[in-house]
Amino acid sequence: MKLSKFYYAILFFLISCNQDNDRFAIVIHGGAGTILKKNMSDEMEKEYKIKLEEALNIGHSILRENGKSIDAVEAVIKFLEDSELFNAGKGSVLSNNEEVEMDASIMRGDNLNAGAISGVKQIKNPIKLARKVMEESDHVFLSGLGAEKFALSKGFELISNENLITEKRLKSLKNIKKRDSIIDNKFGTVGCVAVDKNGNITSGTSTGGMTNKKWNRIGDVPIIGAGTYANNETCGISSTGWGEFFIRNVVAYDISAQIEYNKISIKNAAKNTLEKVKKLGGSGGVIGIDKDLNIIMEFNTEGMYRGFKKYNGETEIKIYK
Amino acid sequence: MKLSKFYYAILFFLISCNQDNDRFAIVIHGGAGTILKKNMSDEMEKEYKIKLEEALNIGHSILRENGKSIDAVEAVIKFLEDSELFNAGKGSVLSNNEEVEMDASIMRGDNLNAGAISGVKQIKNPIKLARKVMEESDHVFLSGLGAEKFALSKGFELISNENLITEKRLKSLKNIKKRDSIIDNKFGTVGCVAVDKNGNITSGTSTGGMTNKKWNRIGDVPIIGAGTYANNETCGISSTGWGEFFIRNVVAYDISAQIEYNKISIKNAAKNTLEKVKKLGGSGGVIGIDKDLNIIMEFNTEGMYRGFKKYNGETEIKIYK
Repeated sequence: MKLSKFYYAILFFLISCNQDNDRFAIVIHGGAGTILKKNMSDEMEKEYKIKLEEALNIGHSILRENGKSIDAVEAVIKFLEDSELFNAGKGSVLSNNEEVEMDASIMRGDNLNAGAISGVKQIKNPIKLARKVMEESDHVFLSGLGAEKFALSKGFELISNENLITEKRLKSLKNIKKRDSIIDNKFGTVGCVAVDKNGNITSGTSTGGMTNKKWNRIGDVPIIGAGTYANNETCGISSTGWGEFFIRNVVAYDISAQIEYNKISIKNAAKNTLEKVKKLGGSGGVIGIDKDLNIIMEFNTEGMYRGFKKYNGETEIKIYK
Repeated sequence: MKLSKFYYAILFFLISCNQDNDRFAIVIHGGAGTILKKNMSDEMEKEYKIKLEEALNIGHSILRENGKSIDAVEAVIKFLEDSELFNAGKGSVLSNNEEVEMDASIMRGDNLNAGAISGVKQIKNPIKLARKVMEESDHVFLSGLGAEKFALSKGFELISNENLITEKRLKSLKNIKKRDSIIDNKFGTVGCVAVDKNGNITSGTSTGGMTNKKWNRIGDVPIIGAGTYANNETCGISSTGWGEFFIRNVVAYDISAQIEYNKISIKNAAKNTLEKVKKLGGSGGVIGIDKDLNIIMEFNTEGMYRGFKKYNGETEIKIYK
């Protein structure tokens, strides 16, 4: 009898361990901004939700099959870049001179390695290039033609910028040019944070930036600490918002720093940071997961394309407030 | 008798107030790295120290005459950029294709406004362009040709890249290419942090980056949060080090965050942050001033060209450990 109790205890211990080791999660965003239900057809809404669900499932399967968070994040962001719905990769917004100019970054929380690129025009999947910079260059951040030369040297195919341009974005650019405005109020970006079964956190973000942007403007997306940050000791964050305000508030790292130094929850940290952004006149959102698998999807805009899925199947996909 | 005591008290109060309002300080660096006394002639050492002193005096006079910290920082960095001794502006190190490619950033602590540029080749004083981006564009960060187009539109003169190249740097590039190394062990950068009589903190940093750099590499200097940060509530910081490690550790903002969230001194915060950089394999230094006028010049390399000067005339100029 005593022995069988002992076996039960061992068995229980093994099951607990196993469950603990099987915990993983993924969270994504597809941009924040003035996204209102009244401006969205049911069909369009459905299309967005289906894409977000597909993206989550891609990441979820990788993580479930013992994949690494870095692979999940890359695969999910590649999928979102390839979708014309989101402002990243194909379907990126257009710069003032009618070109697609993309930024991306990725960071892993186990060794704080990071890779970023800005202003690339001939790369199908910027997130893949950001990862390549992290893994196969001595640098963190490459830009413009230089980043594309690096890509070529690593076997990437350079594609024509035209292949990345969609009719919809061309129309948006023309509308904005008529209004002579640089402010779009929709911060199109895609981002993903994942924690794998080993507890390794990866964050990644990719974007075409702001419609009608000039002068090779760099936003927060490729800035480690602003658009993307990951640290296994604290959390992983991906931002989407008015880049200038996110840079000035060092948004992604500010959330991590509050967890590390202030010992507050990721949710409260994110709320505080977005409050700082708002105080300066900016807006946007963040997604994140902390080391205990708490998930956040915070924003101070009308909406944010977003969703998460956890190891136990718990999932949520939302667009509006 | 009672009345005269009262007058003395008032007088004393006014003097104290006046003294308090008259407090200001400036600190500068001219890069960190393997700077050893045995490799430096007495003459060379003297030359560096004279330049650092002149730079400090330029900033000190502006602040003494009620000037703003933003004007002091700009003037000091312009002076250091114009000197061929330092890796910024004229005398910048050369990229792999024998060009000067410069980065700079500036941030003010009163409103958290910031401006940054990277990869400019035809600008005499990158710090002036960074300030112009901050003050006269809707953006924080412009790069490459785009940044130069913006400069032109604001009346900047574009100069030939050759005018920024010196014999000394051409020789260094050739030596490094022979060794096929990207590691220089000297992190040439110039930086300045100043607090004016109104308590406004400004930080600025400028550099030619790494010798033999390729692929339009961007280092920490133009990254707000890594190379430069300023906030009147905490401190101002300018970094000089192995840029990749400074980006990954969000160095400048990490020091500010520790002051804000951990309530520790700027000195201890800087030591902690540099320890994190070292742990990952990086090295370099930081200068800074907190809101109470405590000055730091911390580094984990053999040397750092550095100096400070305070409102009361207290000053220090040093090179080695």
